[in-house]
Amino acid sequence: MVTPPAPLHLEPDELHARATRIRLVLTDVDGTLTDGGVYYSDRGEEMKRFDLRDGMGVERLRGHGVETAFITRESSPIVQRRAEKLGVKLFAGLKDKRLALPDILRELGVTPEQVAYFGDDINDAAIMDAIRPGGLVGAPVDAQPHVRDRIHFRSALPGGHGAFREFAEWLIRLAG
Amino acid sequence: MVTPPAPLHLEPDELHARATRIRLVLTDVDGTLTDGGVYYSDRGEEMKRFDLRDGMGVERLRGHGVETAFITRESSPIVQRRAEKLGVKLFAGLKDKRLALPDILRELGVTPEQVAYFGDDINDAAIMDAIRPGGLVGAPVDAQPHVRDRIHFRSALPGGHGAFREFAEWLIRLAG
Amino acid sequence: MVTPPAPLHLEPDELHARATRIRLVLTDVDGTLTDGGVYYSDRGEEMKRFDLRDGMGVERLRGHGVETAFITRESSPIVQRRAEKLGVKLFAGLKDKRLALPDILRELGVTPEQVAYFGDDINDAAIMDAIRPGGLVGAPVDAQPHVRDRIHFRSALPGGHGAFREFAEWLIRLAG
Amino acid sequence: MVTPPAPLHLEPDELHARATRIRLVLTDVDGTLTDGGVYYSDRGEEMKRFDLRDGMGVERLRGHGVETAFITRESSPIVQRRAEKLGVKLFAGLKDKRLALPDILRELGVTPEQVAYFGDDINDAAIMDAIRPGGLVGAPVDAQPHVRDRIHFRSALPGGHGAFREFAEWLIRLAG
Repeated sequence: MVTPPAPLHLEPDELHARATRIRLVLTDVDGTLTDGGVYYSDRGEEMKRFDLRDGMGVERLRGHGVETAFITRESSPIVQRRAEKLGVKLFAGLKDKRLALPDILRELGVTPEQVAYFGDDINDAAIMDAIRPGGLVGAPVDAQPHVRDRIHFRSALPGGHGAFREFAEWLIRLAG
Repeated sequence: MVTPPAPLHLEPDELHARATRIRLVLTDVDGTLTDGGVYYSDRGEEMKRFDLRDGMGVERLRGHGVETAFITRESSPIVQRRAEKLGVKLFAGLKDKRLALPDILRELGVTPEQVAYFGDDINDAAIMDAIRPGGLVGAPVDAQPHVRDRIHFRSALPGGHGAFREFAEWLIRLAG
Repeated sequence: MVTPPAPLHLEPDELHARATRIRLVLTDVDGTLTDGGVYYSDRGEEMKRFDLRDGMGVERLRGHGVETAFITRESSPIVQRRAEKLGVKLFAGLKDKRLALPDILRELGVTPEQVAYFGDDINDAAIMDAIRPGGLVGAPVDAQPHVRDRIHFRSALPGGHGAFREFAEWLIRLAG
Repeated sequence: MVTPPAPLHLEPDELHARATRIRLVLTDVDGTLTDGGVYYSDRGEEMKRFDLRDGMGVERLRGHGVETAFITRESSPIVQRRAEKLGVKLFAGLKDKRLALPDILRELGVTPEQVAYFGDDINDAAIMDAIRPGGLVGAPVDAQPHVRDRIHFRSALPGGHGAFREFAEWLIRLAG
């Protein structure tokens, strides 16, 4: 395996300016808030594993005036339960996240420059490209190669095991 | 533990020629699409954990004209549910996979040269030997020693945690 | 990721004196007795994973005259079941653990100097500060940065995978 | 963490002689066939995770004339289901495994010299000491320090993730 490219460089002043603007963290779910795992029983999809340390990240962001929302290709009542528990909006069943972005921003009343994005797979690439020019973009350490050269921040931890929390703490530190 | 032998070498031209021929990826399930784990409750086998990143690999292959099918020794409704979700054929309960191969190829209308195989354990060895001469064969990094010197590609990731996805992306890249 | 600071240093004599005084180990649950994971089904929070090696730690401490109690921000029947199985007290739903400490100590009849604390996240920081002057404080290797410079002992293992057991064996060894 | 001591040394001839004598592998369950994890729901202990690669080890041993039996301190219907699936005897609820050994050997019709033992925790130490003089003893890489200097073989893999399979293949290779 080749060493992943370093995250895209922004000057400290620019990082700080962007972080202080952020009002919304949009995050993919599978592979970011989970480790990609889906537990099947003989009834089909039965469970997914989330991490309470990431949940604490959602709360910590909220304490700093930043809301979180989930954006996912899948349509799963499991993810809906997790979103409800954390009190965050869920945008589900999106085959093309990039296409859905304008409506989401309008509904939540934010501009692209006020958004940070966290994702891990090929279907996150286009929306990352849309948010990167003015916002902030991150990924877990085990993200697919397709997104690794599109990010400003790479977590030291893999998806589902605290990667999102790291991204949240990074945003909080930058804006501080 | 001894360092596993390097995967069998094929020249780039031969790799490309084989990859462009592939129409079917046959994959074992336990230890390849899962990490070998089986979750027992007091009712017996209750769950297995799959990975959505591997599921994305099945879709990515399909987008390049390559179908996937599961081939397994076990007979489990859990695996049937996963196969249904991904829309792939399941050949289950096969004590001898090698013996079953001709019927499978006939049913799916492909020749051995159009097949890539992904497996991890001793009961994958014989079918790997049957497919290797003209097709392509891979295994997760944590495959049993019995299959490690029978493969053209070894994933950097273990079974159930993206190993199959790596194999899929390797095939797509080779054929590109 | 920066190397975490070394645990706070105490002289061997002082460590021994403190360890022999300990009558109660207070431990956080999520991220310490679990790896932070929470398994969701379409009914919501369904399961958490505990480790029997940590359960053996609770028994080993008891064999040396030290009781264990759980102290957690969450309110979960899952954790209640685990506490019942191990026969330990559970203090749950505590938004501010530091504030709850005096009542807990009174109920259990111990002084702060007789308490060892094990935690992993930002909401453990204040109660760690309260117990550290006279008691002993530990954390799993994957604890949040906020608690890493507040501890006397860092487990080599992560939360939910034997970190608590290590802390228990350390206390037993020190007092021996 | 200190480097664990090297496994106890036996000359190749002696290893081969012992291995060819083995008729029974006695194995602990939690921490050896599982990674120590126990999944709790609001009904209490709900699931444990086993590994099909270890199950293949049981079958491989059987193919070489060696039976396997489980010996455990816990009393769990979950473990009973796993034993039934593999067709092995289960000796459960044993607070003192060493004490139970003579009855088990009598019931299975083997002598201590015909037994190999696999365990990971402090309550395996005494029975390991009883079997070690004439039999063979092993442990997963993540066994507790209390058993690490009592074994002839240490798996490279942790409990529940193929450690038992390695022990089985080691026995088969030695006897070959």
